[in-house]
Amino acid sequence: MAREGARAMGREGGKRRGRKTASGTGFQQLPWRNLRNPYRPVEVLSDDHIQAISDTAFRILEEVGMDFLHPEALQILKDAGAQVTPGSERVRLDRGLVEEALSHAPARFTLHARNPAYNLEIGGNGVVFASVASAPNSSDLAGGRRPGNQQDYRDFLRLGQIINHVHLFGGYPVEPVDLPPATRHLDCIRDFLTLTDKVYHAYSLGRTRIRDALELTRIGHGLTDAGLRAQPSLFTIVNTSSPLRLDGPMIEGVIEMARAKQVVAITPFTLSGAMSPATIAGALAQQHAEAMAGLALAQLVQPGTPVIYGGFTSNVDMKSGAPAFGTPEYTRAAFASGQLARALKVPFRSSNTNAANCVDGQAAYESQMSLWGAVMGHANLIMHSAGWLEGGLTASFEKFVLDGEMLQMMSEVLQPLEVTEESLGFGAVQEVGPGGHFFGAAHTLARYETAFYPPILSDWRNFESWSEAGGETVTQRAHRLYKDLLAGYQAPPIDPAIQEALDAFVAKRTEEGGALES
Amino acid sequence: MAREGARAMGREGGKRRGRKTASGTGFQQLPWRNLRNPYRPVEVLSDDHIQAISDTAFRILEEVGMDFLHPEALQILKDAGAQVTPGSERVRLDRGLVEEALSHAPARFTLHARNPAYNLEIGGNGVVFASVASAPNSSDLAGGRRPGNQQDYRDFLRLGQIINHVHLFGGYPVEPVDLPPATRHLDCIRDFLTLTDKVYHAYSLGRTRIRDALELTRIGHGLTDAGLRAQPSLFTIVNTSSPLRLDGPMIEGVIEMARAKQVVAITPFTLSGAMSPATIAGALAQQHAEAMAGLALAQLVQPGTPVIYGGFTSNVDMKSGAPAFGTPEYTRAAFASGQLARALKVPFRSSNTNAANCVDGQAAYESQMSLWGAVMGHANLIMHSAGWLEGGLTASFEKFVLDGEMLQMMSEVLQPLEVTEESLGFGAVQEVGPGGHFFGAAHTLARYETAFYPPILSDWRNFESWSEAGGETVTQRAHRLYKDLLAGYQAPPIDPAIQEALDAFVAKRTEEGGALES
Repeated sequence: MAREGARAMGREGGKRRGRKTASGTGFQQLPWRNLRNPYRPVEVLSDDHIQAISDTAFRILEEVGMDFLHPEALQILKDAGAQVTPGSERVRLDRGLVEEALSHAPARFTLHARNPAYNLEIGGNGVVFASVASAPNSSDLAGGRRPGNQQDYRDFLRLGQIINHVHLFGGYPVEPVDLPPATRHLDCIRDFLTLTDKVYHAYSLGRTRIRDALELTRIGHGLTDAGLRAQPSLFTIVNTSSPLRLDGPMIEGVIEMARAKQVVAITPFTLSGAMSPATIAGALAQQHAEAMAGLALAQLVQPGTPVIYGGFTSNVDMKSGAPAFGTPEYTRAAFASGQLARALKVPFRSSNTNAANCVDGQAAYESQMSLWGAVMGHANLIMHSAGWLEGGLTASFEKFVLDGEMLQMMSEVLQPLEVTEESLGFGAVQEVGPGGHFFGAAHTLARYETAFYPPILSDWRNFESWSEAGGETVTQRAHRLYKDLLAGYQAPPIDPAIQEALDAFVAKRTEEGGALES
Repeated sequence: MAREGARAMGREGGKRRGRKTASGTGFQQLPWRNLRNPYRPVEVLSDDHIQAISDTAFRILEEVGMDFLHPEALQILKDAGAQVTPGSERVRLDRGLVEEALSHAPARFTLHARNPAYNLEIGGNGVVFASVASAPNSSDLAGGRRPGNQQDYRDFLRLGQIINHVHLFGGYPVEPVDLPPATRHLDCIRDFLTLTDKVYHAYSLGRTRIRDALELTRIGHGLTDAGLRAQPSLFTIVNTSSPLRLDGPMIEGVIEMARAKQVVAITPFTLSGAMSPATIAGALAQQHAEAMAGLALAQLVQPGTPVIYGGFTSNVDMKSGAPAFGTPEYTRAAFASGQLARALKVPFRSSNTNAANCVDGQAAYESQMSLWGAVMGHANLIMHSAGWLEGGLTASFEKFVLDGEMLQMMSEVLQPLEVTEESLGFGAVQEVGPGGHFFGAAHTLARYETAFYPPILSDWRNFESWSEAGGETVTQRAHRLYKDLLAGYQAPPIDPAIQEALDAFVAKRTEEGGALES
């Protein structure tokens, strides 16, 4: 019997690819792409289900209410007609108010990068991949796990700048805890603007930091205030403190970003069984309520503010309370969240998550479960796409490049299949005929270089060649690759006048003490 | 800012789950399920594409033709009206002949196991997962890679019997090369019938072996010849020797299995760039031609024979000739093959493949890319679902149980989301309110045990607990788990009379020399 698989050919397998992989030089990757998802979204909810979840979400906002821990938000909501319980931060929002506010949210928009080639279309069938964000620790095979620091922070920025399928930075890949909290945002955002020229994120940690981020972005992009308002160039992820609470610093971020007409993503942190009911349906209803409330606030501050609906529903291990990611619940919640976001006609954000403690098979299969949920759920922004480990507690350098491979593969899955007279290759089949092979066929030789997906980490050599070369795991190869990539890093060009202005602003604000409120 | 991910809860993470995983005792898994795919298939081909591929496939069969290396097949095809070039094995089949023959193929059927609880519905929205098959080598962390042998063969059968989401055996998980070729099939099939009571496969390696397999199946299932014909209980995978050739021993398998009305799956071995054109469209057209020719032969032998359309199209690394699996091309080919099989109204077979040389992240992400292609392409039979490594050159014990986890997760993804008044949990949200948590809520406690997917290998403990416990990778955990499972294996019950009859038949046929033709 013809044995399925590699046997027929395994012995000739992969010397050249092998050497290339082993040396780490001559790094090849797919080009930058503005990805479009050509497939129908996978739907796990019926129309009745969507209605029931939506009705429950509105009932939560009307009967239970949500706490907004900031007087300005309370005033804005009160002025809009919401019921604010006197002497409390509890706000009850009725359906009409929320629906009217959300009706002003754009279905899609462009998020501008310092380099226009890296502008992002958010919404519709667009798909963009963001780096890992906000990990307190970083790790690699050589240095192990350590608290986040500026060196690692900058290295992740350099890697994200190099890897084409990391489309933007979803936050600080790792928190540089060696920098003073009051001025950290100044250094970090200047790094975003100088070490990279892709889109980046600013944290909603109070008014001052967001205003500094807006000003640095205005300077970095060479815009006037009006110019910045005219082209969204900064985005912030606002997490609700589930259940049903929005904290003060986050609220200030929503207000400042909306006033500047920049991008606000609202992502409830609904871990089912902990911060939301121990059912996916219940977690989704609460997520929907919290997301709608936050999105409504942004629209009330400024109608037409570009916003994104964030879905982060996963579950905890009921036996231990440990959070789980990349689970079947997570995947189906991503399908469902996409349906809920589309029902509101706003872009949808999901994530590439896993709960593994090292870059092993679990890290890979949980990431894949998340990615497929996000992509087939038609997420427009996929956060933590590269580098996330340990449920977000660590940013891993090896995982960053391993994810780079997985993102490239997903990007290829989203490309159309070419079905033409030429590609159908009847002539080649006729030329080769029964019992031959296609290695030497003209049709093959014409496609030699570009026929198929070229991997950056996957090793397709046969077992013997792979063993002779050291028998490395993909994680060990990833370690060498990320080091090689950093060694070859080159900073993107920047107008010296802009660089000077950025430095001057950072110097001035640092002298003033940065974010004194914190 | 609320840090997304585990931080809020990571510290309390997972002691109990951890201990359970670490000890390997108290193995828990999801129950056996007759899986149904509730999602719409993902479609990568337009109707025009399907038409163009189908037209090209028919043109190949009409103008190029296919070689059938067996006089009996040549006669059957000639009698049916095909053009057989005199003095050759080249057969040209016209569209009408093929379409008429295929019109007799059932769209779905039941494949019977010795234990009726393990009967399989093949077709429609059904999904069944088969073990790895036909690997020449086996491997585990302790013993390394070695030639296949009876001990490993039997251990894989025991594991497949234990793991609920391995629904059937797609062939010999590993080839027991320490058994004499002429009688190997007798020992192996008796093992299928005694160490397991799930569905199994017989190789089409000539008439004698298939007839022995049919007789052992008849005896093992306690059936008459007529009874066996009335309930398909054996299946065979027939690979074409692409391009466009069907070998003699395979043809004898098709003929014998069709005469006994057992299940024949035809799977062209169309590695794009080697055995088929260096384009996915071209490989699919050739796959479609070869599959239709084989399926037509089975129907000509006996109209109504239960058949399966196999899609195995992947690509080679053009730089080395090494086969690649779990690539983006593979995933899209699976989506497309499902569409082509549905156009013929026959069940569809795909596979869980990868080209990794060890059980690392690459093995996991390539497997996931294959599984998602197969499941979203609505494959009814997913071959090599558990244990396949190295493009099929090795059956890995660790990969077998790691796949067991991935199959369970996929099975959960295919379960409907419960959206009811109860599961929406408005009362729980009302009870907990803003700023609380759901750990102690009545709604949570009522679901404590069964709320979420329970993993068999994934480790969700926090980094500290995981490190203290030895910091094992999922592959190391898989090693311990498979050893534990084998230690707890119990053979399924069998009627002593049937056991005796099986032994007697094997003894008699062994005495006669087994398959003398080989």
